[in-house]
Amino acid sequence: MITGKNYIGFTTSAKGNDLVKNVAAHDGSSLSEDFYAATEQEIDEAVKKATHAFKVYGNMSGAKKANFLEEIAREIEMMGDTLIHRAALESGLTQGRFEGERARTTTQLRMFADLLREGSWVEAVIDTALPERTPVPRTDLRKMLTPLGPVVVFAASNFPLAFSTAGGDTASALAAGCPVIVKAHGSHLGVNDLVAGAINRAAKKTGMPDGVFSSLNGSGRKIGKALVLHQGVKAVAFTGSYAGGKALQELAHTRKEPIPVFAEMGSVNPVVLMSDKLVREGDQLATLYAGSITLGVGQFCTNPGLLLGVKSDALTDFSQRLATQLDGIESATMLNEGIAATYLNDRQKVLAHEAVELSTKEGSTYGLPTLALTTGKNFLANHQLHQEIFGPFSLLVTCDSQEELEQIIGTLDGQLTGTIMCTDKDLSANSEVVNLLHHKVGRLIFNAAPTGVEVCHAMNHGGPYPSSTDSRFTSVGTGAIKRFVRAICYQNMPEAILPEALKNVNTLTINRLVNGKITNNSIH
Amino acid sequence: MITGKNYIGFTTSAKGNDLVKNVAAHDGSSLSEDFYAATEQEIDEAVKKATHAFKVYGNMSGAKKANFLEEIAREIEMMGDTLIHRAALESGLTQGRFEGERARTTTQLRMFADLLREGSWVEAVIDTALPERTPVPRTDLRKMLTPLGPVVVFAASNFPLAFSTAGGDTASALAAGCPVIVKAHGSHLGVNDLVAGAINRAAKKTGMPDGVFSSLNGSGRKIGKALVLHQGVKAVAFTGSYAGGKALQELAHTRKEPIPVFAEMGSVNPVVLMSDKLVREGDQLATLYAGSITLGVGQFCTNPGLLLGVKSDALTDFSQRLATQLDGIESATMLNEGIAATYLNDRQKVLAHEAVELSTKEGSTYGLPTLALTTGKNFLANHQLHQEIFGPFSLLVTCDSQEELEQIIGTLDGQLTGTIMCTDKDLSANSEVVNLLHHKVGRLIFNAAPTGVEVCHAMNHGGPYPSSTDSRFTSVGTGAIKRFVRAICYQNMPEAILPEALKNVNTLTINRLVNGKITNNSIH
Repeated sequence: MITGKNYIGFTTSAKGNDLVKNVAAHDGSSLSEDFYAATEQEIDEAVKKATHAFKVYGNMSGAKKANFLEEIAREIEMMGDTLIHRAALESGLTQGRFEGERARTTTQLRMFADLLREGSWVEAVIDTALPERTPVPRTDLRKMLTPLGPVVVFAASNFPLAFSTAGGDTASALAAGCPVIVKAHGSHLGVNDLVAGAINRAAKKTGMPDGVFSSLNGSGRKIGKALVLHQGVKAVAFTGSYAGGKALQELAHTRKEPIPVFAEMGSVNPVVLMSDKLVREGDQLATLYAGSITLGVGQFCTNPGLLLGVKSDALTDFSQRLATQLDGIESATMLNEGIAATYLNDRQKVLAHEAVELSTKEGSTYGLPTLALTTGKNFLANHQLHQEIFGPFSLLVTCDSQEELEQIIGTLDGQLTGTIMCTDKDLSANSEVVNLLHHKVGRLIFNAAPTGVEVCHAMNHGGPYPSSTDSRFTSVGTGAIKRFVRAICYQNMPEAILPEALKNVNTLTINRLVNGKITNNSIH
Repeated sequence: MITGKNYIGFTTSAKGNDLVKNVAAHDGSSLSEDFYAATEQEIDEAVKKATHAFKVYGNMSGAKKANFLEEIAREIEMMGDTLIHRAALESGLTQGRFEGERARTTTQLRMFADLLREGSWVEAVIDTALPERTPVPRTDLRKMLTPLGPVVVFAASNFPLAFSTAGGDTASALAAGCPVIVKAHGSHLGVNDLVAGAINRAAKKTGMPDGVFSSLNGSGRKIGKALVLHQGVKAVAFTGSYAGGKALQELAHTRKEPIPVFAEMGSVNPVVLMSDKLVREGDQLATLYAGSITLGVGQFCTNPGLLLGVKSDALTDFSQRLATQLDGIESATMLNEGIAATYLNDRQKVLAHEAVELSTKEGSTYGLPTLALTTGKNFLANHQLHQEIFGPFSLLVTCDSQEELEQIIGTLDGQLTGTIMCTDKDLSANSEVVNLLHHKVGRLIFNAAPTGVEVCHAMNHGGPYPSSTDSRFTSVGTGAIKRFVRAICYQNMPEAILPEALKNVNTLTINRLVNGKITNNSIH
């Protein structure tokens, strides 16, 4: 049920007078419900409840947290088409897309539940006492990961389920043992409301403390800012624009106690098209990339916004084929009016640049698939061409030489992904490209499109600045939990009060590093 | 041999006109050598050499890097008493202390060499392809840690060997695969010169690239600032004051590409003295803490600067015994004139506070051991009493009640360590203290003094802000290497060019997480 209210733990709350309108993406028409923006008092209540809940939740067993996460998944599934319809209505994306995205969301929740049940993620390290050591004995030292405290999650517009209210950030923070306060995204307030209700139902059913989850409506500038500055908040997760992520990071640094902000921001996700590959498979590549550029109306973090190649007939052929394919794909509804207008505007600005040529058809419909062309020389000379254009847009850069291509890679900003389309022959002739691109990206892909981020242990979704604020962490995959924990070392702690994961008897049968060796044995 | 010059990779360099004086700590007399401060050009050369060296060094095998680290240890040992004498002369600490500190330094280097030879620290994670999976197949994904690039290490004054030129920061950064540029500490320029020479001899002997290590003399404000702002630098490590660490962190955030700064800063390392323990062992506790407070003339990061207890006769007894013991310990030479003067000044300021009483003898000799007393109420009312006084000083706070004690712990800033002196009886009566202190510290110690930081896998030296800038990392122990690496994921990468650690055949026989299971088997 859509309440239109804020969720402050188990309580729905509507104390303010500011109402936020909710619209259908496809025509901008108002939907029947309005949503109450959170007041300062409500923000404070949510953080206080989270802080209080943390005392219990931060020490809860993995098995209990796992039950909670699985119950959230079940509650989401139980909403059935209500959720799917609402998501399609608010975002303009298809119901089919949301069936996939819902599966991804519940898979993520269950993946973290599995991680918690298995338990080794806490990185238990034990160095037992060496009382006989000379010149000084060693005392018993045991270390494990412990949650940071309440986490603020900024819901992302482009994945109303998988990167939003119960998305990867929320799932990983809850898994870590951190209560979560979601700043709802204004583009899908109804979906947020439904999912926040589901999470709190799951929390009640599984005996979680009141305040383990809250959700607040309102603007990032006001609600978001107040949350990031609240002394009770200990970490922030964000997926969105560079401007948004950067602003949050700067805000967090003005605090008396600065806190970590993990912001996954913009990326043009460069794709290097090597010559032998183009000669052999240019046609398939055009099809693959036309699909990748327009997937989700180009509103993916890993959208391939930059295509790089050395001039050749095969590259020219590919370029023409790609343009033809893109021209055959209809403009589609973007996530909201603001994103759609910004896309057209940014696209126009780049196309107005004297060094850039439009390769696809003219037009000014929202969400128009676009391929633009420029030369390596112009790309090097104009840093504005390195910027992300959020939408179904890609810039193909034709380099004069291999050296120019390598020079360009060397000047790129940090990226979530980099892709190399190549044959073995290409690779042996261009090994330096792999090495150069490696230093710029969080994920290096071979012979596939960058869109599609697998949720698994080996995923890394994050990359050198400015693609994310801290390249040492990922926002997708089991590793995402590490953003919200720190190590604590217990020295000479009485066995009776040691955390379960560090006791001599390994009742959890987790892998532990004991005196330098990985083992799941107990200590005798 | 002391050159008085900067080390820019394998080249010694003295292009500037600014000379830095070097003095003996015990009397402030000038030593014979002067040292050339680095020029802007030399700074740039050092970073460029490091960037160039990184191309080779960042991809070097663990075994080769291990040889290098072990050779550094050998070169340090081969300098024999030359190094020990110089360290004692420059720092005012004893030769015995430096024999211990040298052992710690070489142990650290060899510990990282062992870590590299074993190899599992790269956290190899492999999720193999699932071509048959529906609705979409999974491609092959492999992830491991990769070094960030050139690291600037600020040498610390208080451990001229173990936290300086070849100390834990340098050892862990080099182990990670990052070239290091040391900003030498002005209090032990001769020691820095000797050790920088040793590192470069080791680098040459073991075939490391020129630029893998540099060392620059000069002030933090000038040389340090220029290094942190240099676009080629990718991370910073620092041990020192809150003001120093905070300044570096803010500087790093003004960069176009902000970089991680791991600063290990101030801490008062609270010690909770519980009543039953005081009744039973008050005398031994006084001896233990008199030793800990004055160890290294109180110039340890984990010096116990705050003692907390609930009023009782046993606490009063302990307080008097501790004061008597401290009065029996002679004032000793501090690391440099500045530190000694600041100590006396900060000590005087606190003692001038109307709420504080001096318990040890009056005096104004440098390095005078001091115990000051106040009440819980006063401590709560005056946040200035929470500040670290760097030197052999401790403030004993007598609380009116257990509630007041808990309230105080709740208001403490983040700390490197927290200590609980207790019996089992104490613990069962005061379990909340453990929980409260847990959230404030990086290391929670039971029934031992906080001084003495074991170098091992389970150590955590770091803690919630402001004890360090990022509580998610440690600066001591094998975990310190994680500050200088990030994950990179390779998707669908041809086996031939995969890094050794990620190939199907596990030639390194490291532990890897393959499809969710830890194994050192190869993939078939």
